[in-house]
Amino acid sequence: MNASAADRTAARARVLSIIRENFVERMPFHRLLGIDVLSLDHDRPELAFAMREELVGNYVKNILHGGVISAVLDATGGLVAFLGVAQKLSGKPIEEILARFARIGTIDLRVDYLRPGAGSRFVARGYPLRTGNRVAVARMELFNDEEQLIAVGTGAYTVW
Amino acid sequence: MNASAADRTAARARVLSIIRENFVERMPFHRLLGIDVLSLDHDRPELAFAMREELVGNYVKNILHGGVISAVLDATGGLVAFLGVAQKLSGKPIEEILARFARIGTIDLRVDYLRPGAGSRFVARGYPLRTGNRVAVARMELFNDEEQLIAVGTGAYTVW
Amino acid sequence: MNASAADRTAARARVLSIIRENFVERMPFHRLLGIDVLSLDHDRPELAFAMREELVGNYVKNILHGGVISAVLDATGGLVAFLGVAQKLSGKPIEEILARFARIGTIDLRVDYLRPGAGSRFVARGYPLRTGNRVAVARMELFNDEEQLIAVGTGAYTVW
Amino acid sequence: MNASAADRTAARARVLSIIRENFVERMPFHRLLGIDVLSLDHDRPELAFAMREELVGNYVKNILHGGVISAVLDATGGLVAFLGVAQKLSGKPIEEILARFARIGTIDLRVDYLRPGAGSRFVARGYPLRTGNRVAVARMELFNDEEQLIAVGTGAYTVW
Repeated sequence: MNASAADRTAARARVLSIIRENFVERMPFHRLLGIDVLSLDHDRPELAFAMREELVGNYVKNILHGGVISAVLDATGGLVAFLGVAQKLSGKPIEEILARFARIGTIDLRVDYLRPGAGSRFVARGYPLRTGNRVAVARMELFNDEEQLIAVGTGAYTVW
Repeated sequence: MNASAADRTAARARVLSIIRENFVERMPFHRLLGIDVLSLDHDRPELAFAMREELVGNYVKNILHGGVISAVLDATGGLVAFLGVAQKLSGKPIEEILARFARIGTIDLRVDYLRPGAGSRFVARGYPLRTGNRVAVARMELFNDEEQLIAVGTGAYTVW
Repeated sequence: MNASAADRTAARARVLSIIRENFVERMPFHRLLGIDVLSLDHDRPELAFAMREELVGNYVKNILHGGVISAVLDATGGLVAFLGVAQKLSGKPIEEILARFARIGTIDLRVDYLRPGAGSRFVARGYPLRTGNRVAVARMELFNDEEQLIAVGTGAYTVW
Repeated sequence: MNASAADRTAARARVLSIIRENFVERMPFHRLLGIDVLSLDHDRPELAFAMREELVGNYVKNILHGGVISAVLDATGGLVAFLGVAQKLSGKPIEEILARFARIGTIDLRVDYLRPGAGSRFVARGYPLRTGNRVAVARMELFNDEEQLIAVGTGAYTVW
């Protein structure tokens, strides 16, 4: 790897680190849910979070509240939308990329609850379905630590 | 009001108080969001919650995270489904009614985000669209303290 | 009514007549379904169509195919989106308004099927939920001739 | 293959042939759309249909009407739901299986339109996401003859 390739790799690592910081540290509700960024791969980024008592919906069955699931899937879809934008702006100043991050908004979200949200740790994965200049559409999946598919979702996002 | 009418009113008040307790006190994620029950009218129940820093999604604009909105609308739709069941079981022992509460599950949810979630207090209202023996469908709306419609949603729920 | 008011009324009638023609005559699938425009009120436009054998889904129960319902609700939501655009472009040349019509596209659609689609004639009504410069969101309802609510839907549309 | 294996194969072929006949010949709206059954594999059944003038939505662009797409995806999801039921009832009399077919109903449907529906022939494919005793959930995809993904959808179906 020559000097300029090393530079580009370092620049990309710095961008990813800033995205991660913005996505977790500066979004209070993500901190409340305990969301961690596992992967910023624009083709299938991943988030993770641990079960804890505050996230329980059904006190009899000790499973995740449906609202926790919809919140994490919305966050995952928003990350897919943002990474699509970041990909297109590759090479631009990080400030310009982050300015777009703050403008991304969810148009709508659908969540299908397939199995009770039982487990001690959950991973959400997103996939781009449409990466337009104005609207992005993402598909999302939530798995528990036994690799069971708990829920799937689809979201449309503004990306201008 | 004669004695038996007073009895029925007292019984109904007790049922509503138990529902409220179950919905808030025993559902940890509802406590985390700060959800309060405003109305248990089965035709249009209402929940409310206050803005606070932990519920913010966009740190630039100081607005609700989309996941908070989807979580509250899911809770509202689940309440509509449960009140439909409770209505049908009217007169049955409260234990039987509450046992059904724990079995209600969200099949799927759609949320449309119409305006940024700015405000200091929010009210969610639900309406029954279908009150079947196996599936209930509800429509939900979220308003801020200026009566602006922030988001709408639709959810399907199992009620067996 | 003075001359210029009469002129404006005549101009508006001409625009509506052209919209109607475009919506039915030039959209072959609308003709196949037998869709008729009842109202072009931008706050709640209405379409209607008659039951006929080709639109049946369930040959045992003689009810509308779910796909007919989703198609009509999509058409209704698209009409809401277009009328919102037309409203904003009020006073512009009809060619400019119609050019926008051809660019409207459905981003996504949700349909909730509430009752079997039994009846001899159906009316679909739409309501604007969001009338943005890039995205419009509409809510739609389908009634049979006994005023029973058969299905509801929500759609997001591009309007640029 | 011994005699009884041959019998089972013949029985299964007969069941599939009857399903195909019911799905196309006895569902008038499927005939109107020109739907053909490509595969009855319960893990990923496929339908196909050809472009024709009546299915066009946008007369300028010569693309499928969104309502055609939603109708075909709904039909595909219903087929997934039915094949899940048929799988569970494997070995039961064909009359019993078909009686369940007539009872399957769409609870709700979401369609995401990803690309303009341009092409001369389209294939819709379905996948089971949840195969319960009361509710089935399916994911659907529509491709054109260049293998481009035109639209995706998710549907919930009653299967009792």
